[in-house]
Amino acid sequence: MHLVVIGGVAAGMSAASRARRISPDLKITVIERGPVVSYGACGLPYWIGGAVKDANALIVHPPAFFESERDIRVRVNTSVDEILPSRRRVRLAGGEDLAYDRLVIATGARTATPPIAGDHLPHCFPFHTWEDAQRLEAFLRERQPRRAAIVGAGFVGLEMAESLLARGLEVSLFDRSDHFPGWRDEWLSERIQERLAQAGVALHLGQPVREIREGAVDGFPADAVILAPGIRPNSEIAASAGLALGRSGAIAVNELLETSIAGIYAAGDCAETHHLLLNAPAWIPLGTTANKMGRVAGANAAGRRERFPGVLGTSILRVCGIAVGVTGLSEATAREAGFRPVSATVEAHTRASYFGGEAVKVKLVADRNSGRLLGGALVGTDGVEGRINVLATALTAGLRVEEFQFADLCYAPPYATVWDPLLIAAQQLLKETG
Amino acid sequence: MHLVVIGGVAAGMSAASRARRISPDLKITVIERGPVVSYGACGLPYWIGGAVKDANALIVHPPAFFESERDIRVRVNTSVDEILPSRRRVRLAGGEDLAYDRLVIATGARTATPPIAGDHLPHCFPFHTWEDAQRLEAFLRERQPRRAAIVGAGFVGLEMAESLLARGLEVSLFDRSDHFPGWRDEWLSERIQERLAQAGVALHLGQPVREIREGAVDGFPADAVILAPGIRPNSEIAASAGLALGRSGAIAVNELLETSIAGIYAAGDCAETHHLLLNAPAWIPLGTTANKMGRVAGANAAGRRERFPGVLGTSILRVCGIAVGVTGLSEATAREAGFRPVSATVEAHTRASYFGGEAVKVKLVADRNSGRLLGGALVGTDGVEGRINVLATALTAGLRVEEFQFADLCYAPPYATVWDPLLIAAQQLLKETG
Repeated sequence: MHLVVIGGVAAGMSAASRARRISPDLKITVIERGPVVSYGACGLPYWIGGAVKDANALIVHPPAFFESERDIRVRVNTSVDEILPSRRRVRLAGGEDLAYDRLVIATGARTATPPIAGDHLPHCFPFHTWEDAQRLEAFLRERQPRRAAIVGAGFVGLEMAESLLARGLEVSLFDRSDHFPGWRDEWLSERIQERLAQAGVALHLGQPVREIREGAVDGFPADAVILAPGIRPNSEIAASAGLALGRSGAIAVNELLETSIAGIYAAGDCAETHHLLLNAPAWIPLGTTANKMGRVAGANAAGRRERFPGVLGTSILRVCGIAVGVTGLSEATAREAGFRPVSATVEAHTRASYFGGEAVKVKLVADRNSGRLLGGALVGTDGVEGRINVLATALTAGLRVEEFQFADLCYAPPYATVWDPLLIAAQQLLKETG
Repeated sequence: MHLVVIGGVAAGMSAASRARRISPDLKITVIERGPVVSYGACGLPYWIGGAVKDANALIVHPPAFFESERDIRVRVNTSVDEILPSRRRVRLAGGEDLAYDRLVIATGARTATPPIAGDHLPHCFPFHTWEDAQRLEAFLRERQPRRAAIVGAGFVGLEMAESLLARGLEVSLFDRSDHFPGWRDEWLSERIQERLAQAGVALHLGQPVREIREGAVDGFPADAVILAPGIRPNSEIAASAGLALGRSGAIAVNELLETSIAGIYAAGDCAETHHLLLNAPAWIPLGTTANKMGRVAGANAAGRRERFPGVLGTSILRVCGIAVGVTGLSEATAREAGFRPVSATVEAHTRASYFGGEAVKVKLVADRNSGRLLGGALVGTDGVEGRINVLATALTAGLRVEEFQFADLCYAPPYATVWDPLLIAAQQLLKETG
């Protein structure tokens, strides 16, 4: 039995490693287009910013480790041109064919280059992969640009704003929308814009960039341009092989992460997954989801039948020193999905001020009809990750606001307040749900 | 209508304030035995230790605030001698009678003085109330003792160990048991003892203290002795009035926090509450529970019919700089309650090491029969409070380990790892539950 995995970053290496743990006898080959595997792509902006001193610290294991310790063949700098399901083969660039019994597609996503005049000028840098980061780093080091423009206020764009400020650049940020990625909400967008402006980022939101020239974006000075306007799934190779795509354009999978063709699994940013609240497929490409899907796809490719239940779109992001976390549905998304959303917004301390407690801002969303929690967002410097995870757990369980309001959360002066900000928000929300 | 509240700390003032918000016309009187109301009793050890500079910072509001802003009459330094339910009166020390229509009993708890020879010597200090803390502080300031002995390794005893070390004293800690309060578990006790020993606390565990003399406890030098061997509910006044007590000796209440006599409610450390996992009454006196129960008792005394669902025994404690959090049942408690507990223990990082991530130790307990999570404990310097609350939420919802293992928790390098330590522990536990 031969398992071939296309893609060697988060989902791909998780799949290969899990398959090996389950099946010592399986032959496993990972094909990776880039020069490294198993690197933490989410750490790349922090390498640019200097928090990560050496890019190699982002590499979990080198290819040789997988070969010697896990008996996984890793072929880097190798592209797959074609999948031939009828013959159970993949065709590599150069013409070599590789036979497989099981295939995991983990081809990830790529920067969705916008049609902007000038976006191929030499001072323009898409930012998504290891190689993208290397090119930008070299340019910053060698050319010492003073002013950076970031096109796209998504996760990467916002992280890069902080990183480039940390390197001493002036930063301007452009986005056609003025909403936070993944959780359309005016309240949240205002909080983020406030913080960016405080940190000195020049904001140009609400209209598309028209033209990049040497030294300028839409007339605003810029010696370096980061292109991070969004990403799209690398699903073309799957589509060409006849695999069904979902409405998002990512590869459609069932809860076993099987594609429409037997023996072929998909995981990570190239694939859709199930949204637990929308109860429908969704494409929400995130590193943690990629690792989880990889684990399940690898298990099933090795003969198990594990279910990946789905996601809530939980994410967290550092925006110039503050944490912004979201999970579940915003009011806008909830309304489109047929819920009757109500919300409450509170600001409350995370612990006693004499223990350095700070105010955290909370928004909770619930469904008026069922009383169920639908989502939440938090903004603050302290304890955002823990509280977003509390909400994610409540959403996973389908808790109603009424059931959550008296949750027995922990208290001691160094760590918490008697009434957690989440419970204060829940009490506020109960007045709305009635 | 006159609402009388006996006790003006956490539960009592919560009850009075909530009743006022619901019912502007109610006459409300709070009777408090001590000199201050609405103070954060849980902060008292941190005042002794110096983290809180001024004890007055622990007082949320002075009596005059409640009088002028909330129209709540507050009588401090006033004891209730007797409750006369048949005449709907309380008799104050000195003989004055006060008529009530609704009564909330929030008399709290007190140090359960152990029968130790010498425990009334002048260098011995029970530590529970505001006045206790004042007396100890004065002694420490005026006498400058060098060596402190703490009798009782409960919450207060452990917090006082840290505080007295911070004041430069040598500290020894005595307890008849060698288990962590509230969560009997050998693994957890070992972690705590490790930390105490590292911090320089001399441990004398596993046997009762026999004798306190001037300058020594059981022959070990001690110029000051803190008595914190445990607490018991102040329920005698309720019992004398004919109110039913529970098996714990605390006042029995139903989910509306009504006692066995109509019109009388009880809340906080003097009362039992419902344990959500044991599905039985339990006495788990904690500050956060007192506030929540007070809120509900106050609402119902003012005419509402709100339910207090119960508790999980969630708590967190700082032990010489590390956080120790628990929720739900330990294996020992679960076994006694008829479950078939299985557990898993892991140690994992809370975020990337380049973002200061540290290892946290996790123990999870589940029921082999149902697959449900039953409890958990965490020990570490970082992110314990958030993860304990995630577990508490999972327990509130009755999640099975299988449902929790893929919980969509947040990830970004500054805040988390791709696989949260809780999920790693859940995967480990799944191997046990099968």
